[in-house]
Amino acid sequence: MASEGGEKPEVGSNQVAVKKGKGWVVPLLRVVAFLATLAATIVMAMNKETKTIVVAVIGSTPINATLTAKFQHTPAFVFFVIANAMASFHSLLMLVVECFGNKFDFKGLRLLLIPILDMMIVALVAAGEGGAVFMGELGRHGNSHARWNKICDKFESFCDHGAGAFIASFVGLILLMIINVISVLKLRNQLKTAANYSALP
Amino acid sequence: MASEGGEKPEVGSNQVAVKKGKGWVVPLLRVVAFLATLAATIVMAMNKETKTIVVAVIGSTPINATLTAKFQHTPAFVFFVIANAMASFHSLLMLVVECFGNKFDFKGLRLLLIPILDMMIVALVAAGEGGAVFMGELGRHGNSHARWNKICDKFESFCDHGAGAFIASFVGLILLMIINVISVLKLRNQLKTAANYSALP
Repeated sequence: MASEGGEKPEVGSNQVAVKKGKGWVVPLLRVVAFLATLAATIVMAMNKETKTIVVAVIGSTPINATLTAKFQHTPAFVFFVIANAMASFHSLLMLVVECFGNKFDFKGLRLLLIPILDMMIVALVAAGEGGAVFMGELGRHGNSHARWNKICDKFESFCDHGAGAFIASFVGLILLMIINVISVLKLRNQLKTAANYSALP
Repeated sequence: MASEGGEKPEVGSNQVAVKKGKGWVVPLLRVVAFLATLAATIVMAMNKETKTIVVAVIGSTPINATLTAKFQHTPAFVFFVIANAMASFHSLLMLVVECFGNKFDFKGLRLLLIPILDMMIVALVAAGEGGAVFMGELGRHGNSHARWNKICDKFESFCDHGAGAFIASFVGLILLMIINVISVLKLRNQLKTAANYSALP
């Protein structure tokens, strides 16, 4: 009975036994997710291509037109940048909270807020990715039904940089989803441990 | 000690005391989410507008051209339909599992799989919504930089139906996110209850 009394308050005060051996997995995933979304943000935000093309020749004087492709011209790309910037900020914040939050955890709220915020960021990044990818697809292939011509034949490097940003953001999205799954697993393992503890004779 | 012994196996066998009073909230939300995503799927999948416009007049004979706007012409809308159809199927399936799954629950796997699947569906619907909304925005306003003209001035009812589908899908997305939050809350409450039970003297 004495040993039982010494064991249980540990569980009751929410410090349910967690395997400490794999404590580095989530922070590592968060660091990689942070880098991926940051890369997506920067690559897309710096994406700009200026091209001078000859539109007409009068006599022997060529008339040039300078065209610039910027990410700001497409609302979907602006949203993509915002979503990825928010996701990298979120990853950084969660990293800080996970590393140093043990000291000032308020009633286990941390364990509750992290999965919810993670889920919201997943939705945000997925929406940004969806919008930007389909807009990129339109730029690459055009849409003959709506008479929207492709522009990637003129702005190749713009499109290539955009594709790189999509890939980086997609990697970040997948990592965020894996982190989310791990959070749920962790919550459930704690539940199981707590239940097993309480089932001790 | 006898009363304690009678209480604990209940907790240990994973049937942690859950408030039964609010058991109808999640099923209700699921039904509404199902209806919302189903409406989005159907409205978008039936979205088709045919218009005959006069392109030229030769002598006194007008030359007509028949143009059709279909959702199949835009990859983003096709993805939107698929994502929403999957989401409504998911809602229906989860509804069945939540109502009748108590009998054949395998080691509490249900409690684990539901939040993970929910999160994936949230990401899917968000991506579909993002792609379709930005494509709709392009149809509504055009993009002068890329020389993509707006088409909603010609296909008004197509655009209006599309907007309705976006709203329905957005409602479904928000409900799915709320369900997700409730799942996490539920898991955590169970953890708390289990911990409190085990902390009993």
